[in-house]
Amino acid sequence: MNSDSNFELAGAVVGAGYVRRAQQEASRRAALMTSLLSQRRLPATAWTNEQIELLLHELAAMDSNNYVGHVGVGEREGRVFSELVRRRNFAFAHGVGRSGELAAVQPKAAGSSLYAKVCEWMTLHALRIAGLTEVTACAILPTATGMSLVLAFLALLPSRPPTARKVIWPRIDQKTCFKALLTAGLQPLVVQNRREGDQLTTDVAAIEALIAEHGAASIFGVVSTTSCFAPRGCDAVEPIARLCKQHGLVHVVNNAYGVQASATCKEISRAMRVGRVDVVISSTDKNFLVPVGGAIAYATDASVIKRISSAYPGRASGSPCLDLFVTLLSLGESGWSALLAERERLFVYARGKLAETVAPLGERVLDTPRNRVSLGVTLSQLPPALVTHFGAQLFARNCSGARAVDCAEVKTFDGVEFRGWGASADDYACPYFTVAVAIGSTQEDIDLFCTKLAKLLREEQRRAQRAPAPAPAPAVAVDVVAIEAAATSADEEKKR
Amino acid sequence: MNSDSNFELAGAVVGAGYVRRAQQEASRRAALMTSLLSQRRLPATAWTNEQIELLLHELAAMDSNNYVGHVGVGEREGRVFSELVRRRNFAFAHGVGRSGELAAVQPKAAGSSLYAKVCEWMTLHALRIAGLTEVTACAILPTATGMSLVLAFLALLPSRPPTARKVIWPRIDQKTCFKALLTAGLQPLVVQNRREGDQLTTDVAAIEALIAEHGAASIFGVVSTTSCFAPRGCDAVEPIARLCKQHGLVHVVNNAYGVQASATCKEISRAMRVGRVDVVISSTDKNFLVPVGGAIAYATDASVIKRISSAYPGRASGSPCLDLFVTLLSLGESGWSALLAERERLFVYARGKLAETVAPLGERVLDTPRNRVSLGVTLSQLPPALVTHFGAQLFARNCSGARAVDCAEVKTFDGVEFRGWGASADDYACPYFTVAVAIGSTQEDIDLFCTKLAKLLREEQRRAQRAPAPAPAPAVAVDVVAIEAAATSADEEKKR
Amino acid sequence: MNSDSNFELAGAVVGAGYVRRAQQEASRRAALMTSLLSQRRLPATAWTNEQIELLLHELAAMDSNNYVGHVGVGEREGRVFSELVRRRNFAFAHGVGRSGELAAVQPKAAGSSLYAKVCEWMTLHALRIAGLTEVTACAILPTATGMSLVLAFLALLPSRPPTARKVIWPRIDQKTCFKALLTAGLQPLVVQNRREGDQLTTDVAAIEALIAEHGAASIFGVVSTTSCFAPRGCDAVEPIARLCKQHGLVHVVNNAYGVQASATCKEISRAMRVGRVDVVISSTDKNFLVPVGGAIAYATDASVIKRISSAYPGRASGSPCLDLFVTLLSLGESGWSALLAERERLFVYARGKLAETVAPLGERVLDTPRNRVSLGVTLSQLPPALVTHFGAQLFARNCSGARAVDCAEVKTFDGVEFRGWGASADDYACPYFTVAVAIGSTQEDIDLFCTKLAKLLREEQRRAQRAPAPAPAPAVAVDVVAIEAAATSADEEKKR
Amino acid sequence: MNSDSNFELAGAVVGAGYVRRAQQEASRRAALMTSLLSQRRLPATAWTNEQIELLLHELAAMDSNNYVGHVGVGEREGRVFSELVRRRNFAFAHGVGRSGELAAVQPKAAGSSLYAKVCEWMTLHALRIAGLTEVTACAILPTATGMSLVLAFLALLPSRPPTARKVIWPRIDQKTCFKALLTAGLQPLVVQNRREGDQLTTDVAAIEALIAEHGAASIFGVVSTTSCFAPRGCDAVEPIARLCKQHGLVHVVNNAYGVQASATCKEISRAMRVGRVDVVISSTDKNFLVPVGGAIAYATDASVIKRISSAYPGRASGSPCLDLFVTLLSLGESGWSALLAERERLFVYARGKLAETVAPLGERVLDTPRNRVSLGVTLSQLPPALVTHFGAQLFARNCSGARAVDCAEVKTFDGVEFRGWGASADDYACPYFTVAVAIGSTQEDIDLFCTKLAKLLREEQRRAQRAPAPAPAPAVAVDVVAIEAAATSADEEKKR
Repeated sequence: MNSDSNFELAGAVVGAGYVRRAQQEASRRAALMTSLLSQRRLPATAWTNEQIELLLHELAAMDSNNYVGHVGVGEREGRVFSELVRRRNFAFAHGVGRSGELAAVQPKAAGSSLYAKVCEWMTLHALRIAGLTEVTACAILPTATGMSLVLAFLALLPSRPPTARKVIWPRIDQKTCFKALLTAGLQPLVVQNRREGDQLTTDVAAIEALIAEHGAASIFGVVSTTSCFAPRGCDAVEPIARLCKQHGLVHVVNNAYGVQASATCKEISRAMRVGRVDVVISSTDKNFLVPVGGAIAYATDASVIKRISSAYPGRASGSPCLDLFVTLLSLGESGWSALLAERERLFVYARGKLAETVAPLGERVLDTPRNRVSLGVTLSQLPPALVTHFGAQLFARNCSGARAVDCAEVKTFDGVEFRGWGASADDYACPYFTVAVAIGSTQEDIDLFCTKLAKLLREEQRRAQRAPAPAPAPAVAVDVVAIEAAATSADEEKKR
Repeated sequence: MNSDSNFELAGAVVGAGYVRRAQQEASRRAALMTSLLSQRRLPATAWTNEQIELLLHELAAMDSNNYVGHVGVGEREGRVFSELVRRRNFAFAHGVGRSGELAAVQPKAAGSSLYAKVCEWMTLHALRIAGLTEVTACAILPTATGMSLVLAFLALLPSRPPTARKVIWPRIDQKTCFKALLTAGLQPLVVQNRREGDQLTTDVAAIEALIAEHGAASIFGVVSTTSCFAPRGCDAVEPIARLCKQHGLVHVVNNAYGVQASATCKEISRAMRVGRVDVVISSTDKNFLVPVGGAIAYATDASVIKRISSAYPGRASGSPCLDLFVTLLSLGESGWSALLAERERLFVYARGKLAETVAPLGERVLDTPRNRVSLGVTLSQLPPALVTHFGAQLFARNCSGARAVDCAEVKTFDGVEFRGWGASADDYACPYFTVAVAIGSTQEDIDLFCTKLAKLLREEQRRAQRAPAPAPAPAVAVDVVAIEAAATSADEEKKR
Repeated sequence: MNSDSNFELAGAVVGAGYVRRAQQEASRRAALMTSLLSQRRLPATAWTNEQIELLLHELAAMDSNNYVGHVGVGEREGRVFSELVRRRNFAFAHGVGRSGELAAVQPKAAGSSLYAKVCEWMTLHALRIAGLTEVTACAILPTATGMSLVLAFLALLPSRPPTARKVIWPRIDQKTCFKALLTAGLQPLVVQNRREGDQLTTDVAAIEALIAEHGAASIFGVVSTTSCFAPRGCDAVEPIARLCKQHGLVHVVNNAYGVQASATCKEISRAMRVGRVDVVISSTDKNFLVPVGGAIAYATDASVIKRISSAYPGRASGSPCLDLFVTLLSLGESGWSALLAERERLFVYARGKLAETVAPLGERVLDTPRNRVSLGVTLSQLPPALVTHFGAQLFARNCSGARAVDCAEVKTFDGVEFRGWGASADDYACPYFTVAVAIGSTQEDIDLFCTKLAKLLREEQRRAQRAPAPAPAPAVAVDVVAIEAAATSADEEKKR
Repeated sequence: MNSDSNFELAGAVVGAGYVRRAQQEASRRAALMTSLLSQRRLPATAWTNEQIELLLHELAAMDSNNYVGHVGVGEREGRVFSELVRRRNFAFAHGVGRSGELAAVQPKAAGSSLYAKVCEWMTLHALRIAGLTEVTACAILPTATGMSLVLAFLALLPSRPPTARKVIWPRIDQKTCFKALLTAGLQPLVVQNRREGDQLTTDVAAIEALIAEHGAASIFGVVSTTSCFAPRGCDAVEPIARLCKQHGLVHVVNNAYGVQASATCKEISRAMRVGRVDVVISSTDKNFLVPVGGAIAYATDASVIKRISSAYPGRASGSPCLDLFVTLLSLGESGWSALLAERERLFVYARGKLAETVAPLGERVLDTPRNRVSLGVTLSQLPPALVTHFGAQLFARNCSGARAVDCAEVKTFDGVEFRGWGASADDYACPYFTVAVAIGSTQEDIDLFCTKLAKLLREEQRRAQRAPAPAPAPAVAVDVVAIEAAATSADEEKKR
């Protein structure tokens, strides 16, 4: 329709007056787009689904595979066999990026290139709103957090001498992060956390000691973690950043789901101001309510982002970026701010509600002020085997995401042994479980969880009193893994 | 995107050259639309799904319910609660038509009004391609064939004196059509068909006799039928049209699925030239491969179409029109012509294939040259009860649409008795079944059907020879109705 | 997936425990469906879109056109050419209804038949929740309100002698309704409304007089209207129902958008208890937030509904029913109740807010307690021509649905003259405009409207003072019609 | 619906017989799934879109984020903000993979895990059909070819001593591949290609010499390339594989779009039998007609695939796998075989058609029998600058994918200089352009291209004769890059 002559022709059919209103409307929509392209930030208010879809179709029409009468004679022409696949990708087929660089423009795909760029601007704005005020550049990576950390390491490796392959890593019991170090060819120097009250915090002195011991020349840098399960808190990124600056070490921050926590964002911002933070990696799904698939790398120095983006050879799936693009338009600045504010409110609400719920049962919420997303609750009344059982039962009762930790598991990855796996400490004081109050949570969720929790915990406590402790079960950190074991054993029982 | 300044801004982001190509492309798309709006006919070649979707979104953006910042304070504002419903209607919510007239433009819904109008043009063109060369106007009715006939009758009633309420109706055993007469308040004068060889044809002399007997002043008109199940053929519309012209009678043609048969279209065209044909009604689903829901009324005299469209009070669902609009764009002139040609070819193919299939089993294809869609095959070797059973078995074996007729059923509607119901004749010579070679059929379908047919027919013939004829079952015209009976009795057997 | 053996096979692939959870989940979903099929009412709480879509696909799989390996040899086999059309119809292609009856089950389309039936149950439940407690049967008609009224008239005509074709019609200035009477072949006896204060009410005495004058034997019945634009109020259905009972007249209630007004529903219920109400017709789009296309007929006597449904010859589009089905599942009982309650609250809110807004400008809200959806506001400071202009300006400022009435227009339909067209009265006291507080309205809409209203009204008042009254413009009831005129004249000016 | 009791309830509503047919149908569909889960290969024939969608919804219902009444209290719960995003991902939100491994099962996402696994089976089958008969294991990687090569390198690095970081690389002028080597930290030893007639082939002797020169202990392995632009042919993978086996070197094959070429697949199979091929990487979009985003790694040794899959830390986007899953179901074995056969036919057709087209213009098709996808055509009549221009003009005329190479460009990446960039040779004999006959191409595309080609080539030749050679333009390998330059200069001209 988008030509004056078409509107005129349409006016002859359905009335010049009505069409004129529609044409004004087309201008109004074009103005929304102008605002997006010229202001380079989140729209002030949300776009409707209808507005977003129209834009997506217009952008797709800019890609050569959708040209009228297009003839493709290359080996990669955005041909899509399945109509279902075509539709779910809104007729985008060329992915994002180019041989040169992930952020490069594709000659064959101007529309895809455009949404990728606009998404980058909106994301940068969203990060700043969240409190990451020092950030000046970001990249939407088509890989989830773990692989994005690998990519960041690979891109930064050339900035250090070939012999600097050790990496200082304040312990965080998350397999993905540890594997990312290994896949990138780094040799981890694990720093145990210090306990202060309930909370596990960064042992900065130990880091200093490691630098002294190994010599900065042999060290690639420090990988700190700012979002994690309680009782571990956000790493002391400011002192770490100072140390990295002082010793010329790379500092990569694993801020998987910390964008949603304003105190964490502020802390990272301070670290950026006073010390060295090369790049921060955050998950798109955990912070922006999109399906798993992407991550964001962001920094104060645009050249670092460029380096990461350039390290990615060739094209990549546009899906993570497209999902984020649609979501950010659906949110707008006001929606994003509201989501952030609601999460902060709910975090406080959940802490109180959980405390209330478990107090009568002799348990308490762990005091971990440096963790702003995850909350720990003691399971002091349960023997280790029942801790496992408790975790599995939560999942069976339709609650997912809670993790019950008995602090007794031992795991070995690539020759490195982790005692008390799951707790980020060799010998944490007592078993506990954690829940997260993540962005998108609702008060209804929290209330329903507390109701189920009270019921289950009471049952488990009774079970503990009733029977002699069950045979010391193989100590496993139960997130939902135990479910399978439980189910399998139930199966076997049946067969008998 | 649709503004020069946006393209310029985009060019600054993803390269002016690439964006220029995209902008040329936007012009090319606009030109497609210009062609649609100015030529007022089917596009020469099919539009792609992607092109159609973009257009639908652009049209929806012209409706007030989708305006940016729209405030609705009426009782009907196109508010849609469910996102699923919104999406499946492409954000169109205002339906089509207006209090004044079904074809009227809606001020609040310029986009909906536009697709309705363009659909009308394309349909007119499609009818002409099909051979209905005399037609000058058409309306897309939001009701299926039966109700559309009612609407046509109601609209044409005022053109006859209030006492002229009898209607001459060459018998066609299709309940819907008979009910349409009754619902419109007409009193049917049923004309039995004449048998010529295998074929049932219009008894024109009997019609003349009826006019003489009742007097034209008491007669509303004649309703002829041009698409029907073999062995009945297309009505002799030309002589009927001459009679109607001579006596000043209304002539409505029920051409439910005859648009796809070029010989039928030509016959109607001749009737239009030499006699009186007020309006023809055809199904959209049966001729244009859309879901059930709409019909087309078309005529040589635009004022008749206007009268029908004006008789429809208020708005209507836009769905039938929208489905047709999308389908016609998806076909284009070349696609539509190809579909028609392929059906003609397959009809000949199927006749031969069926003849070959049943000859060894002692049956033959009925010779009904005036039926160009439906074919009859004798079931002379089967007793009546097995005719019913045969029909049900076809459905059970995943073949739908075949009708087995034992010529022995009697039905009474509104006091009018129909003997031999299903055969359009009181005493057709022998039982038979019919199949249709309708638009969209495939050669694969025909082949697979013939394979299943041969197998089943042999089984039924053996069954007939083996046992004494089953107790004379209640004679029913089996289309798939018998299936239920069969299933129910099987149920009851089980219960015992 | 839906077989135990498939779940077992899946378990071998992704873990028996996880699959067992998924299988429990499948049971839980099946239980939701069981509840729907056995309780025959709205689900207590909303279904999610994901749940609804899965159900729709499962239902579509029950229709023969989607059978695996299906061979269609009929003339109507649910063949769909366009993949876009297939998808938007969720692969349903057979429409609803059957030659016999609109509510009849289709052998070829068990899934379509099922959603139609479940939709009917849920709608009945929704009507009762809304306050229509006497209703025992309903039908979802595939035609909007106007045509549905025609259908009801046609179905009920045979219950009255052929000479009883006059219909008593308390005046309501809505063209659709008047045309419905004419299309059905009825002869309207228009009853002028009485003015009581600001409000226009039913002149029951005049109705009685008409019955006496014409004789019940010549009268088909009374068509009353319970939802309309202020200042006309809901008809006095209770006294009318008594009269109809007394004189054996048919009573059809046009309750287009009154389902959402509990007082109106209660009034209709009382009428049903004490007098005769044959059938009530309501719009689906205006009451249930679906796109235009369907209506509901409901009654205390199931046989009346059956008669209407039987009068509809043949099949019909399934779209209106499908949209309603999805929407009712999306609402659930709690959602529906909440929507109703919110509307009642907003109606009161809007009345206050409007009063506040216009008081300083010398205008006031009309006092029309018997209208529970529409509110009138005087335009006493504006000359007639500016009333028209005011209405057009509202639309130009993105407010749709307000109607400005200058009470001076004269219209003639089919020889019947209506003075003061738009106001439902020959000589209403003063010009005014109306707004509706319909279901789905938001407080934000109302606030935004009032802001725009204040600004525009002030401008128009200034314009009125400034200039001599513009040349007495052709008096037209402006809803948005004037917009076109305005635009067209602007066009013409340009051309000069 | 999926329970016997629901079918029974439905039967009571719409007829037991009809529902029984529908229930049989449900069994038939379940059997399709059983076949998929038990046979672990492509379905024999294509699934319809409707069948695929139903399956996707059923699988999504197995993921915890879609459980009825689910309470999520983790930091990653598959929450999706945008309904558009939810829908386009079919409500899958958890991606694929797990901390442990890309191919690991997710407890929270049984459905996602299941499609990933089934997709892997079908892909393996598809590879074998294509001729890769030795392959026993594969992984669907969520990264495109380039990054997948990096991942393969990283996973295989630990199998070689830390000092073995050199990599032998027969030159292929594709930036992505070269960057992949660098990003993985490898040091390329570039092997120039040998010219044999028109064709560039692997210099196996040079490879042997390099191994001797550098010593196997310092070499990681060889990266060979089997799909490339003519005139380079498929690498001599068999001799290379023998050398790698002999010297204990890793052998990675970059077979980006060679799955579609049966001769190439057979050659790789032979190499696997007689020598060492650790892993082969192919693109999903270039071979399977899905949007850009994924790649396949496949091998004879399942443990290598396991190592690659384990090297990927954490989860990944499910999109590439989901697109492939849907596409493979849409194809079935017969569809996939037909696509492959059609491509082979078209390749021969295109070679002949191109030869015919350019012969009258004094050009010829390069004789490159070891390239089975790409064809080169000489541009001997054009000066270098016009070669560039010719390429840009093709794109401007809606032909994408052709590459015009003037053999004069010099590029330097990371200190390595490539003369004659684009031709994979320092000094190829003459300028030329290439086209590919890739899977999904149509004869119509080829014909249309040849028509446009003939016209353009004639124009360019005339231009060459007319004018003195344009100022020796900066020599650039023009794929579509030149377009921008051209466009920009055109812009500048306009401005003057």
